[in-house]
Amino acid sequence: MTTPQFKQLRRSYGFDEVALVPGDVTINPDQTNPDFKIEDHTFSIPILASAMDAVVDVDFAILMSKMGGLAVLHLEGVQTRYENPAEVLAEIAGASNDKVTALLQKIYSAPIKENLIGDRVRAIKKGGGVCAASVVPTNTKKFAPLVVEAGGDILVVQSTVTTARHISKSLRGLIFPELIETLSIPVVVGNCVSYGACLDLMRTGVHGVLIGVGPGAACTSREVLGMGVPQITATIDCAAAREQYFKESGRYVPIVTDGGFRKGGDVCKALAAGADAVMIGSVFAQAKEAPGHGYHWGMSHPHPALPRGTRIKVGTTAPLEQILFGPTSVTNGSQNLVGAIRTAMGFCGASTIREMQQAEMVIAPSITTEGKSWQMAQQ
Amino acid sequence: MTTPQFKQLRRSYGFDEVALVPGDVTINPDQTNPDFKIEDHTFSIPILASAMDAVVDVDFAILMSKMGGLAVLHLEGVQTRYENPAEVLAEIAGASNDKVTALLQKIYSAPIKENLIGDRVRAIKKGGGVCAASVVPTNTKKFAPLVVEAGGDILVVQSTVTTARHISKSLRGLIFPELIETLSIPVVVGNCVSYGACLDLMRTGVHGVLIGVGPGAACTSREVLGMGVPQITATIDCAAAREQYFKESGRYVPIVTDGGFRKGGDVCKALAAGADAVMIGSVFAQAKEAPGHGYHWGMSHPHPALPRGTRIKVGTTAPLEQILFGPTSVTNGSQNLVGAIRTAMGFCGASTIREMQQAEMVIAPSITTEGKSWQMAQQ
Amino acid sequence: MTTPQFKQLRRSYGFDEVALVPGDVTINPDQTNPDFKIEDHTFSIPILASAMDAVVDVDFAILMSKMGGLAVLHLEGVQTRYENPAEVLAEIAGASNDKVTALLQKIYSAPIKENLIGDRVRAIKKGGGVCAASVVPTNTKKFAPLVVEAGGDILVVQSTVTTARHISKSLRGLIFPELIETLSIPVVVGNCVSYGACLDLMRTGVHGVLIGVGPGAACTSREVLGMGVPQITATIDCAAAREQYFKESGRYVPIVTDGGFRKGGDVCKALAAGADAVMIGSVFAQAKEAPGHGYHWGMSHPHPALPRGTRIKVGTTAPLEQILFGPTSVTNGSQNLVGAIRTAMGFCGASTIREMQQAEMVIAPSITTEGKSWQMAQQ
Amino acid sequence: MTTPQFKQLRRSYGFDEVALVPGDVTINPDQTNPDFKIEDHTFSIPILASAMDAVVDVDFAILMSKMGGLAVLHLEGVQTRYENPAEVLAEIAGASNDKVTALLQKIYSAPIKENLIGDRVRAIKKGGGVCAASVVPTNTKKFAPLVVEAGGDILVVQSTVTTARHISKSLRGLIFPELIETLSIPVVVGNCVSYGACLDLMRTGVHGVLIGVGPGAACTSREVLGMGVPQITATIDCAAAREQYFKESGRYVPIVTDGGFRKGGDVCKALAAGADAVMIGSVFAQAKEAPGHGYHWGMSHPHPALPRGTRIKVGTTAPLEQILFGPTSVTNGSQNLVGAIRTAMGFCGASTIREMQQAEMVIAPSITTEGKSWQMAQQ
Repeated sequence: MTTPQFKQLRRSYGFDEVALVPGDVTINPDQTNPDFKIEDHTFSIPILASAMDAVVDVDFAILMSKMGGLAVLHLEGVQTRYENPAEVLAEIAGASNDKVTALLQKIYSAPIKENLIGDRVRAIKKGGGVCAASVVPTNTKKFAPLVVEAGGDILVVQSTVTTARHISKSLRGLIFPELIETLSIPVVVGNCVSYGACLDLMRTGVHGVLIGVGPGAACTSREVLGMGVPQITATIDCAAAREQYFKESGRYVPIVTDGGFRKGGDVCKALAAGADAVMIGSVFAQAKEAPGHGYHWGMSHPHPALPRGTRIKVGTTAPLEQILFGPTSVTNGSQNLVGAIRTAMGFCGASTIREMQQAEMVIAPSITTEGKSWQMAQQ
Repeated sequence: MTTPQFKQLRRSYGFDEVALVPGDVTINPDQTNPDFKIEDHTFSIPILASAMDAVVDVDFAILMSKMGGLAVLHLEGVQTRYENPAEVLAEIAGASNDKVTALLQKIYSAPIKENLIGDRVRAIKKGGGVCAASVVPTNTKKFAPLVVEAGGDILVVQSTVTTARHISKSLRGLIFPELIETLSIPVVVGNCVSYGACLDLMRTGVHGVLIGVGPGAACTSREVLGMGVPQITATIDCAAAREQYFKESGRYVPIVTDGGFRKGGDVCKALAAGADAVMIGSVFAQAKEAPGHGYHWGMSHPHPALPRGTRIKVGTTAPLEQILFGPTSVTNGSQNLVGAIRTAMGFCGASTIREMQQAEMVIAPSITTEGKSWQMAQQ
Repeated sequence: MTTPQFKQLRRSYGFDEVALVPGDVTINPDQTNPDFKIEDHTFSIPILASAMDAVVDVDFAILMSKMGGLAVLHLEGVQTRYENPAEVLAEIAGASNDKVTALLQKIYSAPIKENLIGDRVRAIKKGGGVCAASVVPTNTKKFAPLVVEAGGDILVVQSTVTTARHISKSLRGLIFPELIETLSIPVVVGNCVSYGACLDLMRTGVHGVLIGVGPGAACTSREVLGMGVPQITATIDCAAAREQYFKESGRYVPIVTDGGFRKGGDVCKALAAGADAVMIGSVFAQAKEAPGHGYHWGMSHPHPALPRGTRIKVGTTAPLEQILFGPTSVTNGSQNLVGAIRTAMGFCGASTIREMQQAEMVIAPSITTEGKSWQMAQQ
Repeated sequence: MTTPQFKQLRRSYGFDEVALVPGDVTINPDQTNPDFKIEDHTFSIPILASAMDAVVDVDFAILMSKMGGLAVLHLEGVQTRYENPAEVLAEIAGASNDKVTALLQKIYSAPIKENLIGDRVRAIKKGGGVCAASVVPTNTKKFAPLVVEAGGDILVVQSTVTTARHISKSLRGLIFPELIETLSIPVVVGNCVSYGACLDLMRTGVHGVLIGVGPGAACTSREVLGMGVPQITATIDCAAAREQYFKESGRYVPIVTDGGFRKGGDVCKALAAGADAVMIGSVFAQAKEAPGHGYHWGMSHPHPALPRGTRIKVGTTAPLEQILFGPTSVTNGSQNLVGAIRTAMGFCGASTIREMQQAEMVIAPSITTEGKSWQMAQQ
């Protein structure tokens, strides 16, 4: 008896499962141009810093702008719940592993002080930074005007899963076309992972989409909810949505692969999978200038009833500039990310990110411990 | 020379190999309804407790009913072999690892006292619980009437593999249509894993089917017999049988994925694979109220000649209510299972389990240790 | 530019990658008949003991016959090089790991004493055993007549890879049709792993074929030569050859899957893949009666220039009878192999091995450590 | 909504994922001929030693020629930067793990002394060796004439990725057809991994192509750049290019699989995948005569800004002759590589490497630790 199909399962892929194939043409790395645009803002490197409390504070955002990238400040974390977030961050860093989830649940239950929203935005602008600030969909109608008023440049509306069509019996939900019409600044929305959800979001008029739900194999959204699409597949699928939307509207909406990056190679693969830029968390939490004191935690970790995530010790390895541009004596790919992007672009014969999106990739065996101690690169 | 095909092998999948894809529409978790029906009984949560001695005794069954779920009492374990099963359970918990298989073989060779069958059923009913009790096929004709007589609500006929067509030269076997006709209560049968076997069982008139043989990669039925189908594939195939049977008969027979669950994500995946409910063992053996004292063992472990299974130490982690509904500070998915179901349903845009069965899943890389220490969820 | 195909690679499968699917019909285990035939010899269990010095000596061969199976004595190991092999076997067991390869190389360089061939065969016959004896192809013309003359029942011609068409510029090679014509006893030949090689061998008139080259993922033939086909695929392909040959000749030539078995489940899978019987080494080396003193080594391990294999400590676990028939308190599948075969046949609804060859199998995730500590069988 | 394909990913394979299938015909190993040609040079074994400082110096190159193979001297490593490279090599061997990358960066920043190029070439020729010397593309026009003038036999132009079409705005790049026309000796170029890039290179007139970018799963080019194709797939694809070029030009250009070899089995698989020869680094770094003192490092490890690779301790195991020809008591495949090639050729019925390229391979489960302790080869 043949079994009828109740459900088809597609194979999906993460960073560790693919590899870039060099091109038939190569190009000098110093002739590549990896820049990235959100509406009128052009960034010289295609890298964003995640809206996470262990990564971005006011000073880090200013520094990131100087480096040519963009940091996103989370407006519903410690920065807007506390006058002096540095104290609170030190307390988190000092907590023991078994107590930190409860501590985070407590810290993040403090109310948001609306006046601090404008203060943080103004501080970033005053420091010369481009200010991107993130809010969750439920609070967008309330907080977005405060961001604009204070001079914010880009609004990020972000939750674990955001769709253009959210059903709620409570208050009338967030309608993206309305939001965009009322705001004078670009709106980046996320996260999503599928063709349909990404295309829906683009059709609402947003100016960028964040890609990634439960990125990485060990994200606890995978454990707690069973949910998540590995980043290579998510990026490929959402890149298809971008192309489709570009064909039907003539408007090019960039996608930013968000989360799961551990090394330069992961970044290069995301771009080759179709990303216009990447959003990085834990690697930047290692920067000397990161507010997390060598620790990192997810923003859904503090959920009062169903916490997802773990605080991890990432350590402090180098200044942000060295992580981005080197030089380095570290050979594990965690430093000189931009050098890695340019070198990979050169090997793939790509002079722009748009060309890099066309690079060939193969599904390749994942890394094994045995191999690790025995293989090496040739010049 | 091309090799002719002697046999085709289909790829099958377990919980750790798949992941849910968020929907294009999302819904508020508090607007989801995860209820589950067996004939006239409606349960507010789609969760059953396994008919295993380390999980369900009379008190646990009553508690499980209060929580909105359903516990199944095993009528051929210690509960009906001993007047005072608590003593025996304490003895098992106290045994050393190298002696426990022999001890279990001895304990389970004591005869079943038929009078205890009625006693246990009545005790559950007296406590206000819905009483589901399980027997093996060979003893069904003898014990089923005792269950009905004592006021039992649901009969579960369960063995490792149960088919509608069992061949035996000895006594005339169990005929399900006859059984169902003579009984006044619903009959749930299992276990099976294939389209054909499940459809056969449904055609006999049973009111529910348990899915799962050797669930999980390390079940010792896999080692001892080489037998077992991973739960996602088993559920998908049996869901196809349910749809086929519904089409041909108009009768909707629920399927319950039984075994192999370690965390909320596994439960969400089983539902998305097509299950109407799940049956959980080891996670409930961790409940403060579980009779196993923090240990767990399979019911075919005590087989006198060919034991299959191991007693494992699961520990005691929390009251059943917290395991089911939270709140929790544990981030590994082992607590707040119902919260996880509702959140996942929300992300998939499913307002009922029937809609959740339509959620998209992908085959996704399994969890690696390396990844575990480096990934994290974003809000 | 599309890449033309220089070479196609087929996916192959080993024991740990597949699982049996229960049938739509089940049968009582005690109504199954797992017998196995080589020409006029019928064995009540489909199990052979490997022609390896750590497994089979005269006494073990006699015992194996009493149990209903068949042991094969290696005529080119210590049994025919030494008057008193027990002494030599004790010396091997006593050697340290770093010296044992060199010791084996020395021990196996002693000349074969032709008179011992007849002595060993006669001793097995005198003890009431069916005598199967193995030689390598190069020595077959010289030794086979000695086996027949001494009363041997079955000749096994075995090397790592044996084909019907071996090219050699030296002496005229072994021609199987000629050999078979001149001998009065059945000839079993091996090893091979592919459809073509197996079909070729059957067409020479042999009475059985051994399947398996480098079985198991870690066989050192895989490391040293890169050679080997996992046993499930090898068995499926050679079963196709058996069916083809049966169709064209009307003669049924059994195939015996040889090597790589660690537990009862592996045996059940080999039969479901199409084997008529299995040949077991290391699990039998664990028997109280095995000559290897709890150690095991391959017969190509002592190769003077290119040794392949390792001596492993398997330990001594139980008498052979218990390994074959139980009862047991061991739950890892290494004991009661025949009980496992009968139970699996019952679950698959197979009353004979020929029917068992039709059982369905799926490709199923391999065993993980994480899973191992958390899964368990249900009765 | 069906997801349109933005990008297709092909599955690729490495050494550990495939296995050779014995042929339907076998041949005596001593009747196989594994020789290998580059233009007029015939080598009796199809093995090259990598152009790496830990592997090849003048003496090693002479010895390799005596053994019948070919060593390639790196003209831009310590051999041409230092009058006395042995001192520098000893310093590298003596450095601690945390300081070695910085030390290598410093050592390799010393200028190349052009007079040493001729000196090293002449020393190899004087010792009776065939002299192959490697340069990077940028320095080829400057250094190649020095190699020829000093009597070098073969020029190797090698970088991580080399294409026939390199785009650079700086000086006019290296044009291979021009180079080949001006030189009187054969030119081998690499590395590449794809059909298109390999075919392009062959069409420029080169006399051999090196295959392999980031070979092995753990090569740090994979981590740092995300780049690399596993060697079996790279070899199969480039073998297709060789066949295509042979068809269109009548000229047979050999391909050499370069890197990632750990044992004899890997070498046999590369040949069966279509290689004409293999280039080995780390296994030769283990030779008593290797200049690396039991250490090994990649030639892109010392990159000043983006180092890729690690220095690994490989130890010193045996003289080169024993690694190549045995005899050995080591069973892990790291010694008697030529014996392994001949034995595998015999099992595959291949009398030449050209025939060995036709051997069948299967995708086979990778090696697991569990299996390792339990499997063994049969003679």
